Amino acid sequence: MSMAAMLSDIRALTFDVFGTVVDWRSGVAREARALLAPKGIDLDWGAFADAWRARYAPAMAEVREGRRPWTVLDDLHRENLVGLLDERGVGGLSDDEIDGLTLAWHRLDPWPDVLDGLARLKRRYVIATLSNGNVALTVNMARRAGLPWDAILGAEIAQAYKPAPQAYDRAVALLRLKPGQVLMTAAHTYDLDAAATRGLRTAYVHRPLEFGAASVDRPWPPAGTYDLEVDSFTALADALGC
Amino acid sequence: MSMAAMLSDIRALTFDVFGTVVDWRSGVAREARALLAPKGIDLDWGAFADAWRARYAPAMAEVREGRRPWTVLDDLHRENLVGLLDERGVGGLSDDEIDGLTLAWHRLDPWPDVLDGLARLKRRYVIATLSNGNVALTVNMARRAGLPWDAILGAEIAQAYKPAPQAYDRAVALLRLKPGQVLMTAAHTYDLDAAATRGLRTAYVHRPLEFGAASVDRPWPPAGTYDLEVDSFTALADALGC
Repeated sequence: MSMAAMLSDIRALTFDVFGTVVDWRSGVAREARALLAPKGIDLDWGAFADAWRARYAPAMAEVREGRRPWTVLDDLHRENLVGLLDERGVGGLSDDEIDGLTLAWHRLDPWPDVLDGLARLKRRYVIATLSNGNVALTVNMARRAGLPWDAILGAEIAQAYKPAPQAYDRAVALLRLKPGQVLMTAAHTYDLDAAATRGLRTAYVHRPLEFGAASVDRPWPPAGTYDLEVDSFTALADALGC
Repeated sequence: MSMAAMLSDIRALTFDVFGTVVDWRSGVAREARALLAPKGIDLDWGAFADAWRARYAPAMAEVREGRRPWTVLDDLHRENLVGLLDERGVGGLSDDEIDGLTLAWHRLDPWPDVLDGLARLKRRYVIATLSNGNVALTVNMARRAGLPWDAILGAEIAQAYKPAPQAYDRAVALLRLKPGQVLMTAAHTYDLDAAATRGLRTAYVHRPLEFGAASVDRPWPPAGTYDLEVDSFTALADALGC
């Protein structure tokens, strides 16, 4: 199929959220600092965010591989925070304070190109989240940041964490589309590779600042690995002629 | 609990859609006429809409009561349309024309108070659909009409048609709220009664034009049956102090 024919089939865009839409590292670092610094706790806040995030994939794998029942990301985030605070020897937080910091993941800012890009894309396409974040998290984030999603799909709706096939299949089914009419948009190759296996089209968005200075040299995938490869949501809108 | 305490607990509003948010009868009549009148077919278009709608509850009951597997409303609408056209002796429509007319239910206009009311309500509350309409239908309707939903919940997400308890329970769970923090908003008492059984708060919206002239004398429920009883979404926003 030609690129033009492929693009003309697309009816909806589904989006990974953490790292692709929002800058989780800066937001989590900001929120951790706001709560903990006034208590005299001094940490490398970016490294704290990285360490919290590092516990994300193993925790979801426990669920995805059936070693524990379905658990929403808010709950995994809280468990991981408690483990991290313990590891770092940070004590003295109340349950309410731990709950509040867990919700840092609801209060993240989009990358600078996102709002303009989504507004353009939404004119022509259905735009939906396909994130591992739970529905309440994704709704709260969207309300705070002004993200104009048409629908909140993703892991909780499918009861399956990406890259499980059901996460993609359920989103496609709920949109009443064929997989080839849906463009999965993500900054992570594992996510796009899994979507492609289910027949979705793929748009790679390069986000070299996802892990701060540590990821500025993040390599681009080999040209042509995905249907589209761009460095912003506005460039994605350009590529789709929006 | 006092009215003020009850209202201060509410965090999200969930909405019935057909009849409560949109005027399905006028929209379906308009769409049927637009397709069929040019073919020389002359019907009472409002009565046609009523007859199509009358097949809705029995079709959903088949699914809800387990006599057939989960089937989305778009498919029930199509089956019901085919049956209705046959009953009325209307032939000669192509499959594409039947598909197109089925999607009349995606192209319905909100009642005049809805957009203003939702904009005000959304400032303070999460607003989500809790409809028997499937996700794609509800998304398409929202995009066309400018309905600013934070999330599309409802029957397809729960795989259960209202008034089944799971439809309400799943929406509350996805919002990560307690039932008493969610205000079910509907023009139909059966829907509100079922929501109340699951612990949700209830707002009755009086829609005497739902069935055209036939329903202008629709009685109000006895005062105090529901937590709030209003005649528009703007009156609901007033009642909630938005």
